[in-house]
Amino acid sequence: MSDLSRVQNPAARSWIDVATDSPFPIQNLPFGLIELGPSDWALAVPIGDFVLNVDAAISEGLLPEESPSGYGWEQAGIEACRELRAQIFDLLLQSNPALRDHAAARERCLLPLSQVQPVRPMHIPAFVDFYSSEHHASNVGKMFRPQGDPLLPNWKHLPVGYNGRASTVVVSGTPIVRSLGQTKAPDAESPVFGPCRRLDFELEMGFFLGYENEPGRPIPVAEAEDHMLGLVLVNDWSARDIQQWEYQPLGPFLSKSFATSISPWVVFLDALAPFRTDGPHQDPAVLPYLGSNQQATFDIHLEVWLQTAQMTRPQRITATNFREMYWTPNQQLAHQTINGTAVQVGDLYASGTISGPEPGQRGCLLELTWRGEQPLRMEETGEERTFLQDGDTLTLVGWAQGDGYRIGFGECSGTILPSPEFP
Amino acid sequence: MSDLSRVQNPAARSWIDVATDSPFPIQNLPFGLIELGPSDWALAVPIGDFVLNVDAAISEGLLPEESPSGYGWEQAGIEACRELRAQIFDLLLQSNPALRDHAAARERCLLPLSQVQPVRPMHIPAFVDFYSSEHHASNVGKMFRPQGDPLLPNWKHLPVGYNGRASTVVVSGTPIVRSLGQTKAPDAESPVFGPCRRLDFELEMGFFLGYENEPGRPIPVAEAEDHMLGLVLVNDWSARDIQQWEYQPLGPFLSKSFATSISPWVVFLDALAPFRTDGPHQDPAVLPYLGSNQQATFDIHLEVWLQTAQMTRPQRITATNFREMYWTPNQQLAHQTINGTAVQVGDLYASGTISGPEPGQRGCLLELTWRGEQPLRMEETGEERTFLQDGDTLTLVGWAQGDGYRIGFGECSGTILPSPEFP
Repeated sequence: MSDLSRVQNPAARSWIDVATDSPFPIQNLPFGLIELGPSDWALAVPIGDFVLNVDAAISEGLLPEESPSGYGWEQAGIEACRELRAQIFDLLLQSNPALRDHAAARERCLLPLSQVQPVRPMHIPAFVDFYSSEHHASNVGKMFRPQGDPLLPNWKHLPVGYNGRASTVVVSGTPIVRSLGQTKAPDAESPVFGPCRRLDFELEMGFFLGYENEPGRPIPVAEAEDHMLGLVLVNDWSARDIQQWEYQPLGPFLSKSFATSISPWVVFLDALAPFRTDGPHQDPAVLPYLGSNQQATFDIHLEVWLQTAQMTRPQRITATNFREMYWTPNQQLAHQTINGTAVQVGDLYASGTISGPEPGQRGCLLELTWRGEQPLRMEETGEERTFLQDGDTLTLVGWAQGDGYRIGFGECSGTILPSPEFP
Repeated sequence: MSDLSRVQNPAARSWIDVATDSPFPIQNLPFGLIELGPSDWALAVPIGDFVLNVDAAISEGLLPEESPSGYGWEQAGIEACRELRAQIFDLLLQSNPALRDHAAARERCLLPLSQVQPVRPMHIPAFVDFYSSEHHASNVGKMFRPQGDPLLPNWKHLPVGYNGRASTVVVSGTPIVRSLGQTKAPDAESPVFGPCRRLDFELEMGFFLGYENEPGRPIPVAEAEDHMLGLVLVNDWSARDIQQWEYQPLGPFLSKSFATSISPWVVFLDALAPFRTDGPHQDPAVLPYLGSNQQATFDIHLEVWLQTAQMTRPQRITATNFREMYWTPNQQLAHQTINGTAVQVGDLYASGTISGPEPGQRGCLLELTWRGEQPLRMEETGEERTFLQDGDTLTLVGWAQGDGYRIGFGECSGTILPSPEFP
């Protein structure tokens, strides 16, 4: 493995113009998959307003033939992906004429970002969702157990989580069909069937695994990052009325399994290294197998924007930061594998809703509107929102702010469509 | 599709001798996968004390070349599998000399059941576990909520379930390593880390899907069986002390994800058709999308046997019947897909612990020993058991009893190994 430290040079610039507020400078180079035609995918890397078609660059001889490419690129392993990312950095560097000065090759390898169709970046064998924000868990506790302690007794001793539904993880831009299901109003005698009436988003981030574990072997907290390929934004769409009725005693099920959206580009931990920070002080001390959260999380600014069908531009409805999470990715993976469970390349681990301490930093409508009691007002149209309506478009964005550049995640967006008629 | 009704003839006999208490008469012919060598698997069908190597029979020209075969056989679709099963029925029928009278072909195609190594019958993209036995849910409710109603308010309105961990579903015979994890005694101030001390089994059955759904489309209850390939026995091993501490509010997670065992042979619904029966009367009436449970379940006798390291033979510790389940497979699948969630060929749906109304019919040690308060006595050695000890072997068996034959599932067995040292 060659020295990769050069890719973290904040002064590096590409021969492709990149605006200072672009999510995709040469310091980022996340990996994703674009669809070129039916059953035809290419590994792609966004840079400024363009996307490098890695498969095409390999065909042109600009990148090594044995590089990860196409559908299944992630199976090549994290080291091969990191090496390829460094080679792409070199190819796009201001001083490198190999692609810069060859119009025909540029034509084949560089596509306008606005014209490509990203798909799920990889096959996702399993999806785990945590509940790792203290502010979120406390707010939910206050709403649903007003008499008790806002946090349940286990919450500060282990990262609470559950297995989600991997088959319905979709890429940003996929329309979200309002879920049908069974709900019961607290004062109703019997449940009813119909469209969800309390459709919510959840602002989350997630990491993908790039290496499996040895059979039956836990992944120690100190090795956890070696198994992580990178991070994406996650919107864990939630049908709150279905959830409220179904979730006891085995947890959320259909209220989450209709859809989970992710941003298309997997941002490498290497790109986020300059933004490392400590997680919140953990008290009581955690058990030794959970290690520490020192320098184990990242300073990533996060925002959520909502645009109703009547609005001409989106309105920001919340802003928070990934570093608010009480439990870090390392701790989540060490906990989940402590029983030797088999994990696989492509497994996705979401953080749980990310809420900050202030009201304007809450990561879902359940909290932002306090169960619908305090509607949000849309400034452009005067509309009110408690939960999402058909035609609403909800968009997550996030970035780590460097000196003169941003390591961004792009958008994680979805528009709500009405429920189907049920036969 | 040709007429398949001939395969249900109770009077049919094979030229292979089959004992009347064998699980694998010619009326059964379940499908599984056997390992012949490294990365070398064959589709296999047990008959009496033998297994037909389907891949070999295809090579011999005894079955059509385009038949489902080898690893991935289930991707051929249910109709192709049913057709193949009927052709195997014909091949093994007493009157058919094609294989019966050719010693060399018999040598290549028939293997002693005791000498083959079954593996997971197929790739399992997703695993869902329900909680559909009223007796089990009531017993658990009585133990953990002695003051309240034994059943939570949602229980009779929807089949409560959750997403499990597909990656750790293992075939019968795989050793079960005692899980490490975090537990807290009710009177302790803080949790501790170490081996699970309340290791339990759960007697369940499960069905495999043989067809996916159309994208976003619920599978109506009347079509649900068209998507089911067949049934297996399931042991949903459970770490009760880990479960008790971790499960609120998002449900069981690590307490289940260390291992789930299944029997190796997928028994077709066609083979179980003569044993159809009604589920229990459902009151209150269920919502229309959940249909009815009339003739929607099966009369399948189930037993659990325990053998400690000191014993020379296993002791039966419980016996019950699949027809006890309040919610039927049809209702489970219709409920789980009502929100349009994507399902896949090979998805496994387990029933939840199957308990009957009597104390001797309970489907797990938690119930059988009433949380460890009433230990089981092993007659041969005088040992007592509350939960499973290292060296214990736990075996599920089950069959539908016909007139002079049994449609059996074989065994679902596992031996408990001690926890590893944690580094």
